[in-house]
Amino acid sequence: VGIITLTTDFGLKDEYVGVMKGAVLTRFPEAVLVDISHQIAPHDRLQAAFLLAAAVPHFPAGTVHAVVVDPGVGTNRAIVAVRGDGQTVVAPDNGVMSCWLERVTVDAIVCVTNPALRAATVSSTFHGRDIIAPAAAHLAMGLPMTQLGSPMREGDLHRLAALRVRTTTDGDLEGRVVGSDHFGNLMTNVPMTQVPAGARVSVAGNRIGHLVTTYADVSPGTALALAGSRGYLEIAVNQGNALRQLRVQQGDPVTVSPG
Amino acid sequence: VGIITLTTDFGLKDEYVGVMKGAVLTRFPEAVLVDISHQIAPHDRLQAAFLLAAAVPHFPAGTVHAVVVDPGVGTNRAIVAVRGDGQTVVAPDNGVMSCWLERVTVDAIVCVTNPALRAATVSSTFHGRDIIAPAAAHLAMGLPMTQLGSPMREGDLHRLAALRVRTTTDGDLEGRVVGSDHFGNLMTNVPMTQVPAGARVSVAGNRIGHLVTTYADVSPGTALALAGSRGYLEIAVNQGNALRQLRVQQGDPVTVSPG
Amino acid sequence: VGIITLTTDFGLKDEYVGVMKGAVLTRFPEAVLVDISHQIAPHDRLQAAFLLAAAVPHFPAGTVHAVVVDPGVGTNRAIVAVRGDGQTVVAPDNGVMSCWLERVTVDAIVCVTNPALRAATVSSTFHGRDIIAPAAAHLAMGLPMTQLGSPMREGDLHRLAALRVRTTTDGDLEGRVVGSDHFGNLMTNVPMTQVPAGARVSVAGNRIGHLVTTYADVSPGTALALAGSRGYLEIAVNQGNALRQLRVQQGDPVTVSPG
Repeated sequence: VGIITLTTDFGLKDEYVGVMKGAVLTRFPEAVLVDISHQIAPHDRLQAAFLLAAAVPHFPAGTVHAVVVDPGVGTNRAIVAVRGDGQTVVAPDNGVMSCWLERVTVDAIVCVTNPALRAATVSSTFHGRDIIAPAAAHLAMGLPMTQLGSPMREGDLHRLAALRVRTTTDGDLEGRVVGSDHFGNLMTNVPMTQVPAGARVSVAGNRIGHLVTTYADVSPGTALALAGSRGYLEIAVNQGNALRQLRVQQGDPVTVSPG
Repeated sequence: VGIITLTTDFGLKDEYVGVMKGAVLTRFPEAVLVDISHQIAPHDRLQAAFLLAAAVPHFPAGTVHAVVVDPGVGTNRAIVAVRGDGQTVVAPDNGVMSCWLERVTVDAIVCVTNPALRAATVSSTFHGRDIIAPAAAHLAMGLPMTQLGSPMREGDLHRLAALRVRTTTDGDLEGRVVGSDHFGNLMTNVPMTQVPAGARVSVAGNRIGHLVTTYADVSPGTALALAGSRGYLEIAVNQGNALRQLRVQQGDPVTVSPG
Repeated sequence: VGIITLTTDFGLKDEYVGVMKGAVLTRFPEAVLVDISHQIAPHDRLQAAFLLAAAVPHFPAGTVHAVVVDPGVGTNRAIVAVRGDGQTVVAPDNGVMSCWLERVTVDAIVCVTNPALRAATVSSTFHGRDIIAPAAAHLAMGLPMTQLGSPMREGDLHRLAALRVRTTTDGDLEGRVVGSDHFGNLMTNVPMTQVPAGARVSVAGNRIGHLVTTYADVSPGTALALAGSRGYLEIAVNQGNALRQLRVQQGDPVTVSPG
């Protein structure tokens, strides 16, 4: 179908996102462009990694996902295209695929280097427009991955260390708060696949209690822990804002104890 | 044509809007997706109601409008689809259709319950993705309303009490400020159909004067009352910001007196 | 292909952008709509002028660009359509095309006046919906420019004075800071075509140093001057925010001296 999603830290004030779309449409006028987010905090590869992994599985097979959160633009970090489970991601090799790579069966990886598939002149500040958008357009048009550049091995892709969850000697799972969403729900790096039924959760010293099923399982204004729609443990406040109410910060520890 | 509009309180920081679009495109790859707003204040059903009613008439017949402002997600509030005047709205039955229902001739209402037309697993926190987006996709593809669930009566739909305008014993019309737009123009709940030509307007004790036709009818920096593009009375300041200048709040009374 | 871009100061809170899209799709359901920015500062024609000029060259020939930054809505300022280098811009004649006009070879200009190609009722506050969106739809469908209204001469189009760059008696080039982007990079009005290789740059009394090629050419936290992706000189801080760090304001002078 030719769907291309875009995830960037460009914000929406400038023309940058629109220009990337122009760079796609110039090469592939039938592309269907879908914004995931352009409000990733500047250079926040961890946030991008979570959003990308949460979004990809909801798109049809054949979708191409372009990510431009790129503090290393202009340095020699690679730009890569990775295909797995019917989806293709094009991004700087800086860890933004980390969460997605944990879940997917990869079947092809290339380093995007073919000069014929870039802008005629590549700027040193806007590879999203000059390399990533053209690559995404060509992939969405059905160009074989091997045309984009030389193959890479999965083990050579950059991964973010911040994603690691550890098991304590007490048998607890210890993760971290990795951000918050628009509603003030606190995102953690604890995959629900590792959380036992009925687990007890605390965050930064606050006891949240046992895992519940939905916001309304506690009274309004009360904190709760539940399976977030992204597949990770989340801390929320029913009809409230957990970020403001619990005074928790990115990086604070989250502990999950068996019920 | 397969147009689907989206109105939510999701904000643009997270992947939630993109994921809803993925959920639509997975079922209906030819869908044309149009954002109305994703910056409805969290859980503000009144603001959603005004925006929806203002937007719907500007779309071609056959458009499907999905609204996800849903403080009751995870409770037993219904999700409904309502068709009228060639347009279809899919939303939680929580009042977000109230303004639109005042103006439209409804010809079909169903409660969206068919499990075959939802996500395979329905989360308890994201019905926009799991129920509303799939329903919108199916409706935009031409599925008959009756396939979605059982019929409902218009009288059983939830309405927002906050929309009521009253006539005082003096013959004045008394409404309220219901919000402000990006430019600081104050939105009221007074339909222009009820405002007599040459009416005098005051808001929260400030005399604004007689109704004018456009901003430039008063000098720069001066407050004015005019017919807003939404079909309701608005209070603005020529080349200024009425919200800041008049120190008015949501809920403040608006009085309209015959000229 | 029927691509229409939108650049406005409407923000994303209200339904205004969505309504413009509805007004386009009602007339031309196959239109491909691309947002450039809706976060132009209210009534900031200079910012709109820069963004438009930066975006237009990245779209395929035949694209129509609609701009609605329109402090004069409701007055007798004209709405114009200008075609050049394969692109067409529709906007109020208030200077928002100034930067683009400096670079393009214009081959047709009309004043958009044909009442048959507007909304049946034209409001006095929302010409974006009632005049500009319909005109853009008709142009994208291939309607000849001459059908929209009467021809105008290029010399009669409004230009913004704020764009002028002057040469000092010392042979320096003196421009201004015209804004900042999402990353805090400072935008200037100095076209790179006028900046000699190896030039030295200062802004508001801060010496920035010689022109560099990319952010990483200086150490993190250090200010630099480089060719921005818009074709104008920019001042940035490597991995930082120049707007906050340099305490520079819109309008501050920028001096470019031969290296």
